[in-house]
Amino acid sequence: MFHINENYQKMPGSYLFADIGRKVREFSAANPDKEVIRLGIGDVTLPLAPAVVKEMSQAAEDMGTPEGFKGYPDYEGYEFLRRAIKENDFDPRGVEVGLDEIFVNDGAKSDSADLGEIFSKDCKVAVCDPVYPVYVNSHALAGRAGDYLPEKGEWSNLIYMPCTEANGFVPDLPGETPDLIYLCYPNNPTGGAITREALQRWVDYALKNKACILYDAAYEAYITDPSLPHTIYECEGAKECAIELRSFSKNAGFTGVRLGYSVVPKELKCGDVSLNTLWMKHQEFTFNGVSYPVQRAGAAVYSPEGKDQTAAQVAYYLKNAKAIKEGLEAAGYTVYGAENSPYAWLKVPAGMTSWQFFDKLLTEAAVVGTPGSGFGPHGEGFFRLTGFGTYKNTLAAIERIQKM
Amino acid sequence: MFHINENYQKMPGSYLFADIGRKVREFSAANPDKEVIRLGIGDVTLPLAPAVVKEMSQAAEDMGTPEGFKGYPDYEGYEFLRRAIKENDFDPRGVEVGLDEIFVNDGAKSDSADLGEIFSKDCKVAVCDPVYPVYVNSHALAGRAGDYLPEKGEWSNLIYMPCTEANGFVPDLPGETPDLIYLCYPNNPTGGAITREALQRWVDYALKNKACILYDAAYEAYITDPSLPHTIYECEGAKECAIELRSFSKNAGFTGVRLGYSVVPKELKCGDVSLNTLWMKHQEFTFNGVSYPVQRAGAAVYSPEGKDQTAAQVAYYLKNAKAIKEGLEAAGYTVYGAENSPYAWLKVPAGMTSWQFFDKLLTEAAVVGTPGSGFGPHGEGFFRLTGFGTYKNTLAAIERIQKM
Repeated sequence: MFHINENYQKMPGSYLFADIGRKVREFSAANPDKEVIRLGIGDVTLPLAPAVVKEMSQAAEDMGTPEGFKGYPDYEGYEFLRRAIKENDFDPRGVEVGLDEIFVNDGAKSDSADLGEIFSKDCKVAVCDPVYPVYVNSHALAGRAGDYLPEKGEWSNLIYMPCTEANGFVPDLPGETPDLIYLCYPNNPTGGAITREALQRWVDYALKNKACILYDAAYEAYITDPSLPHTIYECEGAKECAIELRSFSKNAGFTGVRLGYSVVPKELKCGDVSLNTLWMKHQEFTFNGVSYPVQRAGAAVYSPEGKDQTAAQVAYYLKNAKAIKEGLEAAGYTVYGAENSPYAWLKVPAGMTSWQFFDKLLTEAAVVGTPGSGFGPHGEGFFRLTGFGTYKNTLAAIERIQKM
Repeated sequence: MFHINENYQKMPGSYLFADIGRKVREFSAANPDKEVIRLGIGDVTLPLAPAVVKEMSQAAEDMGTPEGFKGYPDYEGYEFLRRAIKENDFDPRGVEVGLDEIFVNDGAKSDSADLGEIFSKDCKVAVCDPVYPVYVNSHALAGRAGDYLPEKGEWSNLIYMPCTEANGFVPDLPGETPDLIYLCYPNNPTGGAITREALQRWVDYALKNKACILYDAAYEAYITDPSLPHTIYECEGAKECAIELRSFSKNAGFTGVRLGYSVVPKELKCGDVSLNTLWMKHQEFTFNGVSYPVQRAGAAVYSPEGKDQTAAQVAYYLKNAKAIKEGLEAAGYTVYGAENSPYAWLKVPAGMTSWQFFDKLLTEAAVVGTPGSGFGPHGEGFFRLTGFGTYKNTLAAIERIQKM
C-alpha cells in the first residue's frame, strides 16, 4: 500500500501567490464593476521587446524547416545562450564564469526549488525572514524544515535571519551555524540592496564555516547604485562557496516565456566532489533542457537592440516603483525599497496585520498587494507593492490608496 | 559544513543517453570522414508541422503586443490546452478526465522524475526490466532504490519485473508486492504493446494491493492495432489507482519544444488525501508553468491541420521502423517491436554483449543504436534501433548493417 510524502500535510497553506490569486478572483466575481489593479504577484505587464519577439518567432519558423529543426536540447542549455550570458553578465564585471558552469533552466523558480536535491537531507538551512517562499517550501517538502509551528509562523528546523528596519534589511550573521544560506539581493520582498562589503562578509563567513550560499540575483537589472555588486562572484572566494540564480523574468519580462539560469562553480566542492558535476548529473537525470525558441528568445535579450529595449522596460518599472514610494510617502506611509528594486516595502498602519491591510486595500481601493507576513514572521507589519504594473494603473492605485 | 546527497555517489554512471552522446562525439572526432547515422537516442528528425509552427510563431508575435502579452502561466497549464487534450485524447475514447485532472509540463521526463516526490520515502518501487532509465534514476537519487549492485546491474531495493521474449515483453505480476508500479506501453525500449485485458489485470492488481501505477503512454500515437488501449483509463477502476504520463515529443516532434502532461485523477487517494491535490501543490510550490508560445504550439497539434500533419509524421516514423524490422530480419536478425511502436528491439548476435554490439555497429557501420543493457539487466542481449531517423538514413543504416 502506497503512502504519501507526509511533509505535504505539514504545509500551512497553498503557495502564497496562488492564495492571493484565489482571493482576487473571488473578489472580482463578487464585485464585477470594480476594476482591480494588481500590484501583488511580481508579474510584469509590458509586452516582450521587439528584438525578443522577432527571434522567438524566427526560431519557431526555423523549427519548421529541415535545416533549422532542433530536437532534444543540451541539458545545460545551448552554447549560444550560455556564451551570451558569460560575455554579458560576467565578463564585463571582471568575473570569470566558465561556459560549463552555466545551467540554463525554465525559470529560476524551478532551480530555487530543485537545487536542494543535491544536498544531504540533514543540511541545516538558513533563510532571510521575510523571504521568497519557494526556498522554504522546497526544503519543507524535502523534510529539512522540521515541523511548522503555527503559533510562531515558523518551521522548527530552519534558521531564520530577521531582515528588519534596524539592520537595513540585511541580516546579521546567524548565531547557529547553517550549512545552506539563502540570500537574495536586490531583495524580494523588502526591496533592499546589499553592499559589496556586506556581501563579502557573508562569503567570508560561508568559507570559514564551509557553508554554501544560494544567491538569488533575479533582480540585479534593477540596481541603480553603481557601487552595488551585480553578482556574488564580484566577492573574493565566492566561487568556492556560492551558487547564483538568475532569471529572465524581471529584466526582460519573461514571466510567461520561462527562462533562467544557475551558475554552479567547479571550485564549489564538498570534499572531492564538485557541485558542478552533481548538478550536471541532476539535469541529465531529471530534466531535458529548455525549449529551443525560448533559448533563442533569451539570446536576443543580449543583442544590441535587445539590451536597449529591455533596459527601457526596467527603467519603466523603476519609474513606477519610485512613483509608489513617493506617492505613499506623501500619504504618510513609511516606504522602503523601490530604488534598486521594483519592490516598495511599506509599513502597514499601526494596529493592523498585513493580511488585514491586504483585505482593506482590496475592498476599499481594489488594489492587490502582497502581505508581508506571507513572506515570513518578520514580514508582519509590512506590505509589498510592485512596480510591474502599467504606469497608468500605478498612478491610479497610488491615488486610490491616498484617498483611503 | 554542508554535505551532498550521497545517493549521487551511488549512481553507476551518467545518464544513458548522455553517455551515448559522448561516445558518438568521440568517434566522430576521431573519424571525421565517416557519416554517422543516429538511431540511438529516441530523438525525432522531421521539422515541426506547419500548423504548429504557425501557431507558435503567432503566439510569439502576440506576446509583443499589449493585448496579447501573457505573464506567469497557470501552474497546471492554460485551460485552452487542457481542454484540447481532454476533448481529443480522452472524450473520444469514452474516458472521463476532468480539466482539473490534467497537468501540463515541460516534457514527460520532468514529471517522470518528479512524481516520486509526492510519495513516501519508504514506498517500494517496481519497474519493468528493461526500462526507461529516468524512473529508476529518480528513485535512486531520492534514496528509494537502495544500493547499486554492480555485479547484478541492479539496485538492492527495487522490484525488477523482467520483460522477456517468453512473456512477450509484458511482465508477470511481481512476487513481492510493490507500492508504486511503472508501466510503459507501447513500451520503451522493447517496442512491445499491451492488450486491454493484460492492462486490466494490472489495474485489478493495483486496486487489490492499493498500489499506484505510473503509466507512461508517451508512445500511444504509434498504436496501429485497433484493439489496443490508448490510455490506462480505458480500464475499469484505473482512475482510482493510476497516474498517466503523456508527451508531445513523439506524436508531434516536440523533443526540442518541450511539452507533455500528466493526468492525476481525483479518485486516486491515500486515505482521505487525493493525489490530485498533492500534485497541484507540488506544481504551485516548485514550478511556474510552461511557456505560453509552447502551450499554443501544443494546442495546434489538436487543430484539424495539426492532426493531419502530425499523423503523417507518425506514419513516416512507423514506416522507418517497419523497414528496420524487415531489413534486419532479412539479414538474419530476430527483431521485436516496430509495429505499434517506433522502436525495433533486436537480439544481438550470440556471444556478444549489447555494449559490444554498440561498439561494433558504431565502428563498422557508423550506426548508433542503444545497448539493451543500458535499460536494465534483462535488456542484455538486445539492442534498440529507432524509426525516428530520416527514411533515407534509415535505409542507408539497414544496408550498412546488412553488409556488416
